[in-house]
Amino acid sequence: MTIKEQIREMTLEEKAGLCSGADFWHTKAVPRLGVPSMMVSDGPHGLRKQDLQADHLGINESIKAVCFPAGCAAAASFDRSLLRHIGETLGNECQAEGVGVILGPAVNIKRSPLCGRNFEYYSEDPYLASELAANQIAGVQSRHVGTSIKHFFANSQEHRRMSSSSEMDERTAREIYLAAFETAVRQSKPWTVMCSYNRINGVYAAQNRRALTDILRGEWGFDGFVVSDWGAVNDRVPDLQAGLDLEMPTSFGMNDKKIVQAVQDGTLQEEVLDRAVERILTQVQRFEAHRDSTAVFDREKDHQTAREAAGQCMVLLKNEDALLPLNRKAKLAFIGEFAQKPRFQGGGSSHINCSRVDAAWELVQQNPSAYPQTVYAQGYRTQEDCVCAQMQEEAVQAAKAADTAVIFAGLPDAYESEGYDRTHMRLPENQTALIEAVAAVNPNMVVILHNGAPVEMPWLDHVKAVLEAYLAGQAVGGAVLDILFGDVNPSGHLAETFPRKLEDNPSYLYYHGEGDKTEYREGVFVGYRYYDTKKMDVLFPFGHGLSYTTFTCGNVRLSQAHLTDTDTLTVQAEVTNTGTRTGKEVLQLYVAPPKGDVIRPVHELKGFEKVELAPGETKTVTFRLGKRAFSYYDMDLQDWRVEPGVYTLELGESSRNILQTVQVTAAGTPKKPAEITLDTTIGDVLQMPRGREIVRPLIEAYGMMSADSGNADCLGESTAQMMESMLRYMPLRGLVAFGNGKITDADAQKVVEQLQAAGKPPQAVC
Amino acid sequence: MTIKEQIREMTLEEKAGLCSGADFWHTKAVPRLGVPSMMVSDGPHGLRKQDLQADHLGINESIKAVCFPAGCAAAASFDRSLLRHIGETLGNECQAEGVGVILGPAVNIKRSPLCGRNFEYYSEDPYLASELAANQIAGVQSRHVGTSIKHFFANSQEHRRMSSSSEMDERTAREIYLAAFETAVRQSKPWTVMCSYNRINGVYAAQNRRALTDILRGEWGFDGFVVSDWGAVNDRVPDLQAGLDLEMPTSFGMNDKKIVQAVQDGTLQEEVLDRAVERILTQVQRFEAHRDSTAVFDREKDHQTAREAAGQCMVLLKNEDALLPLNRKAKLAFIGEFAQKPRFQGGGSSHINCSRVDAAWELVQQNPSAYPQTVYAQGYRTQEDCVCAQMQEEAVQAAKAADTAVIFAGLPDAYESEGYDRTHMRLPENQTALIEAVAAVNPNMVVILHNGAPVEMPWLDHVKAVLEAYLAGQAVGGAVLDILFGDVNPSGHLAETFPRKLEDNPSYLYYHGEGDKTEYREGVFVGYRYYDTKKMDVLFPFGHGLSYTTFTCGNVRLSQAHLTDTDTLTVQAEVTNTGTRTGKEVLQLYVAPPKGDVIRPVHELKGFEKVELAPGETKTVTFRLGKRAFSYYDMDLQDWRVEPGVYTLELGESSRNILQTVQVTAAGTPKKPAEITLDTTIGDVLQMPRGREIVRPLIEAYGMMSADSGNADCLGESTAQMMESMLRYMPLRGLVAFGNGKITDADAQKVVEQLQAAGKPPQAVC
Repeated sequence: MTIKEQIREMTLEEKAGLCSGADFWHTKAVPRLGVPSMMVSDGPHGLRKQDLQADHLGINESIKAVCFPAGCAAAASFDRSLLRHIGETLGNECQAEGVGVILGPAVNIKRSPLCGRNFEYYSEDPYLASELAANQIAGVQSRHVGTSIKHFFANSQEHRRMSSSSEMDERTAREIYLAAFETAVRQSKPWTVMCSYNRINGVYAAQNRRALTDILRGEWGFDGFVVSDWGAVNDRVPDLQAGLDLEMPTSFGMNDKKIVQAVQDGTLQEEVLDRAVERILTQVQRFEAHRDSTAVFDREKDHQTAREAAGQCMVLLKNEDALLPLNRKAKLAFIGEFAQKPRFQGGGSSHINCSRVDAAWELVQQNPSAYPQTVYAQGYRTQEDCVCAQMQEEAVQAAKAADTAVIFAGLPDAYESEGYDRTHMRLPENQTALIEAVAAVNPNMVVILHNGAPVEMPWLDHVKAVLEAYLAGQAVGGAVLDILFGDVNPSGHLAETFPRKLEDNPSYLYYHGEGDKTEYREGVFVGYRYYDTKKMDVLFPFGHGLSYTTFTCGNVRLSQAHLTDTDTLTVQAEVTNTGTRTGKEVLQLYVAPPKGDVIRPVHELKGFEKVELAPGETKTVTFRLGKRAFSYYDMDLQDWRVEPGVYTLELGESSRNILQTVQVTAAGTPKKPAEITLDTTIGDVLQMPRGREIVRPLIEAYGMMSADSGNADCLGESTAQMMESMLRYMPLRGLVAFGNGKITDADAQKVVEQLQAAGKPPQAVC
Repeated sequence: MTIKEQIREMTLEEKAGLCSGADFWHTKAVPRLGVPSMMVSDGPHGLRKQDLQADHLGINESIKAVCFPAGCAAAASFDRSLLRHIGETLGNECQAEGVGVILGPAVNIKRSPLCGRNFEYYSEDPYLASELAANQIAGVQSRHVGTSIKHFFANSQEHRRMSSSSEMDERTAREIYLAAFETAVRQSKPWTVMCSYNRINGVYAAQNRRALTDILRGEWGFDGFVVSDWGAVNDRVPDLQAGLDLEMPTSFGMNDKKIVQAVQDGTLQEEVLDRAVERILTQVQRFEAHRDSTAVFDREKDHQTAREAAGQCMVLLKNEDALLPLNRKAKLAFIGEFAQKPRFQGGGSSHINCSRVDAAWELVQQNPSAYPQTVYAQGYRTQEDCVCAQMQEEAVQAAKAADTAVIFAGLPDAYESEGYDRTHMRLPENQTALIEAVAAVNPNMVVILHNGAPVEMPWLDHVKAVLEAYLAGQAVGGAVLDILFGDVNPSGHLAETFPRKLEDNPSYLYYHGEGDKTEYREGVFVGYRYYDTKKMDVLFPFGHGLSYTTFTCGNVRLSQAHLTDTDTLTVQAEVTNTGTRTGKEVLQLYVAPPKGDVIRPVHELKGFEKVELAPGETKTVTFRLGKRAFSYYDMDLQDWRVEPGVYTLELGESSRNILQTVQVTAAGTPKKPAEITLDTTIGDVLQMPRGREIVRPLIEAYGMMSADSGNADCLGESTAQMMESMLRYMPLRGLVAFGNGKITDADAQKVVEQLQAAGKPPQAVC
């Protein structure tokens, strides 16, 4: 029986029932028609499969699983293939466990370092986020298991997340908050999309027809089903009409009844319901059709994958005097509770019941002969934020006696979780005090950070090396040792800017908004788009990451010097490893637009490639840039538009460390012609076809330009320039007011008509 | 004949005619009814009376007059009495010259340092701007001459000024852009208000009924007439209906005909026209009724006033090693064209045909025995911005031979004018090069700046003293000498922040907007409200200004510790001159609100007093603070509201140099009760009267809270906090979704009704 046939056979009640969960984690079955139930489980960086009647939020038991690097870490890999591999691994785990959809990836934009859920998200940059998501999705779905890209959309805070409205202009939505989803949806066709809790410009995401239907399906071609975030359903019938197919978890039949009622009283067309059911069953059937009974959840193997992944994610932020890598035989002091009990994941729905956890100090203890002179001091407690003088003193003494002190620092669990936001950007005071105290006795100091989002580093100048481990998953300890001792050459780069202080963040003044209204006043100036355009000093720029080797970039070639909107530009560059170790470079491509009429960031990431090179080796890296790489979202056209002009392509190792630039000229997309009225300025008229010729008689009649400059003694030299500006900014009607009575309304109106007749101007420039 | 009687006698054509100028500078007369014409003239810092058929923009000859310090400088005096005195002087000049209204003062907010007309405006702070304007208006009008406070409103750029729309939320308009006018209008009742060229949220100021009628007259009690900026009339009949009474300049009868036509065809009520005529004639008659035939325009006396005023305005920004004041007998090198030909006013409608101009170097030359060892080198040319090597070398040699080098620097005329904005914030390159070159040979260096708005100072660390002379009027040279040699102790303070670089400005990303739309996205965070709230490093903070003596502030007393909205708090503090010279302190009072639900600047100026003190002398300074000093504009109430809580009153010498703080507790204004719906969050409910009690049964039924924490091993410590946040942010309808089927829509709806019945809650807190 086809799905359409099944639907034809169903009662209205059965169809309505299929639009909400059977329980917390299953869709409903219709056994008489052979429709099975499908299980969904939390992700996105591990399989949180709950067997009990469950709660979505990590309280009840879930099965033992493997925690991979969280989104914050995974994104720092800048490695599409890694994300794909993690996806494949998760997909396989789902097959083994009979889970049809793993919820994620989560691509919400890191608007503020404070968002409690940043650790799950990828980046402040939508291009990077969506590229990585596309690959994780493709990986999972290659195993015939679905994904649910989330949270759609504009859900960048936990504060009042179920009622707050994210208020933004459409250009900001298109270029930043929707863009994080767009590529992933278009390229990798996730089976499902999860709508978020929040409102967007006043309308609940669950009820947002423009987002769920017009854009997602109409423009992007999404063909799966939309599932509510757990409890995000606002008003079931309007939500269904807006495009929300599946409510999760169960509504205990209550909302099913509303759907039945609405169809019966004619407020809901039955076709809308049928379509939702069809979408849901299509994915259920897809999972059923490709069940892989041979799949095995090999936790040890996947743990190894997690360790390798973590090694690709960690970001070497600073490495003065090449302090790293360390020698295993040296006198080392491992300091900090996180060496023994690392932090590697955040709280909430993504929280994994781990099969095992690797702590660096435990691994060292397991192999004492390899680390003959390494000692450990706890240094601080995570449970309470007060300096324990004795513990700190022990650490200082250990550091004093060591060649190098390695502090394992970061944010305790309570600092970062789903459900609430951080209130500041600092480490706990006891850790800050410890770092300063240790730095005072040993200049050879490494800080390893375990955190899901940027922290302030007032001590940065006092330590030689900083390794940002992020929340690196359950194999964190091993991965840290791999990098510390040079078995793995670090290659992570920041997927977000580390500002010097919280107040520097573009959303600082308005983050959280007032009551249930959060204005995204910074618009498209999120992250480096803001810091770089405002030329602000930052702690570490977007894209930054050091290696134990060095790279150069050269011989940049373009496939063409001039572009039209239908062209795809190929950019090639040679990257060379100029150091003595094998390593991976992340070459980033930023596009800097010409100075035009549109307010735009100084540059935007439009390409990145990670490439491994042996010492002395050179490889060619290729980027392909289509229209979108040069575009902004034009509100008049309601479409993407390229401004004509010269674009600079910047190739670099971070948004602030550009190694090569090259220029390309774009013909540009025609603008929507400006309406010509009496309010049109002379300056704009002069740019129009035949504008100069048409308006000339009026300008000549306009007295001011011919006024005798009889007052030269006391005249500023600015006068000529002022006169020119005066005319340029004057509306056509102004020629009447300043025309000494020689110009009438009718004259001005005639000019308007002549200009209109002269044809649609290609572009009005100020 | 009363005005009403005159109007009754007039023909429709006569009445319509009175609503526009007879020519560029006169209202129309109706001789048969004894209605005289009245002349108006440009201001605001001097009388620009044109006798010829004129042009408004400084090209044709105007009478010789006295140029007082421009708005930028006058505001830096922080001296109400000075502004009043300048106003009285201007009023007297108008009486002598038969001018009925002098256009100004100009109170537009300095949103960006780039605004071409900043030199005419007072401040980035509306309180300061409006207090000063109130005093200038009172001064002029005390001589029975009218003023025209301008440009009403939200006109903070010259770029596309006749077509651009200033887009802002109402709170920003109320707290910043309207506030600059409000106190002046309420307190000093200007005879006229001038509407600006721009649009506000899409509606031309000339046609903005909300601004011109509802707010200006309805709320603030304005009873004069509204005049268009010259050429600002958009569409005469709707403009008249919106509240624009007088069109200037003449419309050559064209718009008069439209008014007649509109009355005749019934689209315009004749009463609207009558009212406009009455408003105009009331002020004309007022001027006529108090003509002072004894008034004399004594240019020499007024020049002396201008010199004294300038001495109160200049701001000593830096004075390392007490380099200033200088000794007249020392070897001094005066360097820079501005020593010989100072810049002291800007271009455009405010440009004065000066009776005389004092240049510092000319005054020195006139009295060589007083300055036996002072030499001059031109150093740079203002006409062209290229380094003249020979000229620079002469200056370097002069500086080398001198004890102290005094560089007269600043912006050439072409940099600052009505009509266009600056494109950057730098001095001309040749001046920057000169300053650096001189600093390299003589560490004892003073820079005197002649400019109407902030400039970047990359050389600041290389010079010992900087005196900001602003555009100080025609007596600038004498005033500079007065301060340089200590005859006048500098007492000016910055009425605007000097940022380190242009990109730091809050409007930087959006200034000028796109096309004809300028979004004021920074909202209320203008000037120090932004820099201080974002804790940004600045070159010189708002309110900064040094003296040749030093002051302390102490013994702060409050009239009461607790406030209600109807109270007026009296704050007293003692200021002592702890140095050895008589000087004037500007004590500033900032109010810092409690951390509440509303997004607010960290502090705002709500009081300032300038007080002169002999060495060792102490005086008590008194501030009075009403409700408004603690308020923000509440959009729900459509009124000013005080948040309850503890306010800190900061007394200081600048926004960054706070000397004393004291706290006061405000009871606060009740909030508009929040609407209670199924979307109301549990957190908000718990704050409501009986909220806890009413919602308790539902929370108890809600399964999650009682879930057994069986998964503690892998649980983050954040879980409890997450659970609490989850509940706090959950809407009432969420209790249904997460209620394990035990809670129905009807249960939740009943809670809503009970809460509504429990009375309007005093306040919903998140």
